[in-house]
Amino acid sequence: FAMAQSSVTLYGVADAFVGSKKTNTLTAVGANLVASNLRQTMVESNGLSGSRWGLRANEDLGGGLKAFATLESGLNIDTGAGQQGALLFGRQAFVGLGGNFGGLSLGRHYSAFDAVRGAVLSAQNSAYTFDATNGYGGDFTETQLKDLQAYNQAATPANQVARAPAAAAALARSVARMGAWTGYVPRIDNSIRYETPNISGFQGVLVYGFGENKTATTGATKNGSASLTYVNGPIAVALVHQDDELAKGFHLKNTAVGGNYDFGLAKAFLAYNQAKFTGLAKQNEWAVGIRAPLGATTLVAQYAHAKGDDLGKNQSLGLQVEYTLSKRTTAYAALNQTRRFDSLAKNDVFGLGMRHTF
Amino acid sequence: FAMAQSSVTLYGVADAFVGSKKTNTLTAVGANLVASNLRQTMVESNGLSGSRWGLRANEDLGGGLKAFATLESGLNIDTGAGQQGALLFGRQAFVGLGGNFGGLSLGRHYSAFDAVRGAVLSAQNSAYTFDATNGYGGDFTETQLKDLQAYNQAATPANQVARAPAAAAALARSVARMGAWTGYVPRIDNSIRYETPNISGFQGVLVYGFGENKTATTGATKNGSASLTYVNGPIAVALVHQDDELAKGFHLKNTAVGGNYDFGLAKAFLAYNQAKFTGLAKQNEWAVGIRAPLGATTLVAQYAHAKGDDLGKNQSLGLQVEYTLSKRTTAYAALNQTRRFDSLAKNDVFGLGMRHTF
Amino acid sequence: FAMAQSSVTLYGVADAFVGSKKTNTLTAVGANLVASNLRQTMVESNGLSGSRWGLRANEDLGGGLKAFATLESGLNIDTGAGQQGALLFGRQAFVGLGGNFGGLSLGRHYSAFDAVRGAVLSAQNSAYTFDATNGYGGDFTETQLKDLQAYNQAATPANQVARAPAAAAALARSVARMGAWTGYVPRIDNSIRYETPNISGFQGVLVYGFGENKTATTGATKNGSASLTYVNGPIAVALVHQDDELAKGFHLKNTAVGGNYDFGLAKAFLAYNQAKFTGLAKQNEWAVGIRAPLGATTLVAQYAHAKGDDLGKNQSLGLQVEYTLSKRTTAYAALNQTRRFDSLAKNDVFGLGMRHTF
Repeated sequence: FAMAQSSVTLYGVADAFVGSKKTNTLTAVGANLVASNLRQTMVESNGLSGSRWGLRANEDLGGGLKAFATLESGLNIDTGAGQQGALLFGRQAFVGLGGNFGGLSLGRHYSAFDAVRGAVLSAQNSAYTFDATNGYGGDFTETQLKDLQAYNQAATPANQVARAPAAAAALARSVARMGAWTGYVPRIDNSIRYETPNISGFQGVLVYGFGENKTATTGATKNGSASLTYVNGPIAVALVHQDDELAKGFHLKNTAVGGNYDFGLAKAFLAYNQAKFTGLAKQNEWAVGIRAPLGATTLVAQYAHAKGDDLGKNQSLGLQVEYTLSKRTTAYAALNQTRRFDSLAKNDVFGLGMRHTF
Repeated sequence: FAMAQSSVTLYGVADAFVGSKKTNTLTAVGANLVASNLRQTMVESNGLSGSRWGLRANEDLGGGLKAFATLESGLNIDTGAGQQGALLFGRQAFVGLGGNFGGLSLGRHYSAFDAVRGAVLSAQNSAYTFDATNGYGGDFTETQLKDLQAYNQAATPANQVARAPAAAAALARSVARMGAWTGYVPRIDNSIRYETPNISGFQGVLVYGFGENKTATTGATKNGSASLTYVNGPIAVALVHQDDELAKGFHLKNTAVGGNYDFGLAKAFLAYNQAKFTGLAKQNEWAVGIRAPLGATTLVAQYAHAKGDDLGKNQSLGLQVEYTLSKRTTAYAALNQTRRFDSLAKNDVFGLGMRHTF
Repeated sequence: FAMAQSSVTLYGVADAFVGSKKTNTLTAVGANLVASNLRQTMVESNGLSGSRWGLRANEDLGGGLKAFATLESGLNIDTGAGQQGALLFGRQAFVGLGGNFGGLSLGRHYSAFDAVRGAVLSAQNSAYTFDATNGYGGDFTETQLKDLQAYNQAATPANQVARAPAAAAALARSVARMGAWTGYVPRIDNSIRYETPNISGFQGVLVYGFGENKTATTGATKNGSASLTYVNGPIAVALVHQDDELAKGFHLKNTAVGGNYDFGLAKAFLAYNQAKFTGLAKQNEWAVGIRAPLGATTLVAQYAHAKGDDLGKNQSLGLQVEYTLSKRTTAYAALNQTRRFDSLAKNDVFGLGMRHTF
C-alpha cells in the first residue's frame, strides 16, 4: 500500500446465517385472498446487519473544516450478488464538507427517518431480517391502494370476486418481507443532506432529494426527511418526519416519535409512527423493544404492530440472542414471526449465524 | 491491512454538485425538427471529474523493469450507480510491463486521443459535465448519418416531411450531452497500448483494439489511436489521430493538433480537430481555453466550436471557478451552455459542487 | 489508511494475453451436425488465472478461534466487465469461524470438487483458458441430453434429419469453451462449508448448498460436494465427489480420483473422473499432466480425454511456458487445442501474456 498520500478506510460487514424460512404467495380464490405457505431451509445473508463493503475518505482541511466521502455497497454473501438492485454503491454514496456549521453533503443518503429508526427507535439496531420494524414494503402505488380499497369496501360478494385478483396483486409485493411498519424510501437519490452541530445533545438532520423526473407535462417528484434527536447519557429520543412523493401528487408521509432509555440492566425502546397515503389511507404503527446484556450474551426482543385503514393489521415479533466473540465478531440465534393483513399471511424465519465487521 | 506482501493503492474521486440543467427532446413537426426544453434542479455527479474508485498495483522487477496494473471503476455519486454501462471496471482495466523500452499493456485503455484531449488540449482537464470539448456523441451510425443527409438535402418540402422523423431520431441520441466536439471511442476494449519512453519531452502513445466481432461473412472491426506529445517547461503540444471502425467499413476518423502554454499569469489552450465519417461527412472543430490562477482560486474558461457538413454548427461554452480547499479537495461553481445543430437544441447546466480525491 | 482498527487485505490478479482463437458454431445440415469455424486475433483475459479483486478479513478471537471472511470478484481485464454473470462477488463470498475443529463457513463457496481439481488434479493449477481439464460445459439439461440421445440413436436418416436441430442446439452451449471434462457447478450458492483440521496430511472438505427454489409442487434442489486429500512431502492425492441436482430429480454426479507427485525434475499429474447424468448417460474422463521447472522457466503440458455414452469423445491439450519475472509476476506463452463430440468441433487458442498478482 502506498499510504503516505492516501487517507481512505476500507471497511465492511459479512453476515450470514443458516436457518428456515416460511414465505407466502397470495392469490385470489373467489372472493377470498388466500396465502399458500412455503417453508424451506436456507443459507441467508444479513441476519443482524446488511453485508457490505465500503470506502470512507476523510481529510482535515484546517480551521475546523473537513472533507468527507463514503461509497458503500450492499451484498448478499450467500450468493455474491449485489443488493439494492445491484447498484455499484447502493447503500450510501456521498461527498461533503463538515465544520462548526455541521455537515453538508451531496449524493445518495439514508433518509433521516431510516437513520433514526435504526439508531434510536429500534432494539435491533440496523438489523434487517429479524427486525420487527423494518420490512413490510408499504410502498404501494396509488393504483394498488385504490384496488385494495375497492376490494375492502365492496358492497356485494360478486363485486368482491371481481376485485380480489387486483387486491391480491397489490398485497403480493410486500408479503414476503419481515417487519410490520409501512415502508418509506430508506435511501434518497440526488439528495442534499445537512446535519446541524450537536448542541448539548440535540441534533437535527435534513435530507432532501430531487426526483429529476420532470416531463413536459408533470413536475419532478421529491423526497424529504427531517429528524430531531436528543441523546444524553442513558436517554435518546427522536422526532422524525418523511414525505415521499411516490408519484406526482401522491405522497406517503411518515411521522414517528420515540426513543430508548438505558436502565443499566436493560435498554428499553418505544416508538410510534403514523403513515399516511395522502387522501387514501393511513396506518398507526408502534414498536416496543428491549436489549438486555448478560455478560457476553445480549438478549433482544422487539414487537411491532401496524393497523391501517385499508391494509388491515400487521404484527411482527423479533427475538435474538447475540453472543459477542469480539468487538468485531458476533454469533447469533434469532427468529422473526410476522402476521400481515389481519393474519392472512404468516411469515417466519429463524436462524443461526454470525456477523464479522472489518 | 496485511501490507508486507501487498503493494496496491486504493484511490478514488468523489465529485458532486447541486444545480440546474436544461435538456432537450427532439421531435419532427412536419418538415421541421423541434426541440422541447426541460429545466430542472438536480444533484448531479462528476462536475469537474468522473467519480471513481480504483486499484493501482506496481512492482519493481529489477533491472529497470516494472509490472503494473490498474482497475478503475466509474460511478455516479448522486445515485450510487455505476458508469460506463455499469461495467465492473469501466474506466480503465489493464496489466503491463514498463522499462527502458517504454510501457506495454493489455486491456481496456483510454484511447490516445482521449488522453491527449484531456491532458493537453482542454482547459477543463478531465472535466465531464462542464467541458466544452467533451460530449456531443458524434457516434452516429452509418444509417443515422444517411438519414440526416437525406433530410438536409431533401429537394422538396414533402420529401423533408417524410424524412424528418428519421433525422430527429438520428440527432436525438446526442442531444442531451454537453460539449461541442464529435465523438470518438474514449475507451478501447481488447486493446494493446504502447507508450514510448519520454525522450527530451517527446512521447508517443499507440492504442490498438480488436473488435473481436468477426462473423462468417464479415471481418472484425478495429479501433486505433496514436499520439505524439511534446511537453517541456511552459509548453505542451500534441498531434493525435484516431480511427474508429464503428461498423465494418464505416470509419470515424479524428485528427487533432493543439497544445497549451503557461504564460505564468494564465495558461492558454488552443486545439483543432477534424472528424470524418468516411465517404459521408466531415466536421471541423476547434477549441480555445484559459486557466488563470488567482491565489487559491482558478478561473477557467473554454469555448469549443464544431461545424459539420451534415451536422450543422455546434458551440459550447464552459466557465468554472475552482477554489482549492486542499491539494485533494476543490470547491467549484461552473456552467456550460451548448447550442447544437445550428442552435436547434440549447442545453445548459450550472452548478455548485465539490470534488474530493483520495 | 486508518489501520489500527482494520484487518482486511485487499488483493487481486490481473491476467491478460494477446493471441488468436478459433471458435465454432454448430448447425444442423440435413442429418449432419456441422461446425463452422471462426479464427480471430484477440486481447483476452484470464490466461493462467481468473483476473479478480478481493477482500480478505481475519481476526484472532483467542483460544485458537478465529473469524474469517472473503469477498472475491471476477473480471475480464480486456473489457472491464465482471465475470460470473457480473455478480458483485461472483468468485467467492463467505464468512466463518476456524479453530481446532477445522473451519465452518456460510456463503458462496468453491465446490470441493473444483478446489481439488485446481489444486491437486490439474497441472495448470487454477488456469482457465489453457487448462485441458476445465471447460466443456457439461451442464446439459435433461431435455438437451434426451435430444442428443434421440439424435444419436435415431433409427432412420429421416429420423435423424428431424432431430438434428435439437441436437445441435444441445451441443451449442458448450462448444465454444476449452477443456475436455464434463462440467459440475464450480461455485455453490447458499452453502455451508466444513473443512476438517489437517491430520498428518489428511484433510476433508464438505460443501453443501440449498437450492432455495422450492415451489408448491416441487422440493428444493441441492448441490453437495465432498473431498478427501492427502498431502505429504512430494505426494498429493485426492478422492472427490460432487452431486449437482440440476433440476429436481435430475442429477449430475462426478467422482474423481487422482494426484500429483514431485519427482524433483518435474511434477507429474494423473486424474480420473466419472460423470453420470442419472439414468441418462455417463462419461469417463482422465487427465495427465506435467510441470517441469527449468530455472525461471516452467514447462507445463496437460492432456485430458472424455468419452461419453451420448456425448462422443472430447480431447484437450494444453501447453504452457511460464516465465517467472518475480514471485508475483509471470509472463507466459500458451496454447490449447480441443476437439469435441468426436472431433465435430475443433477449438484452439494460443497467446502471449502476463499475470500480475497483488
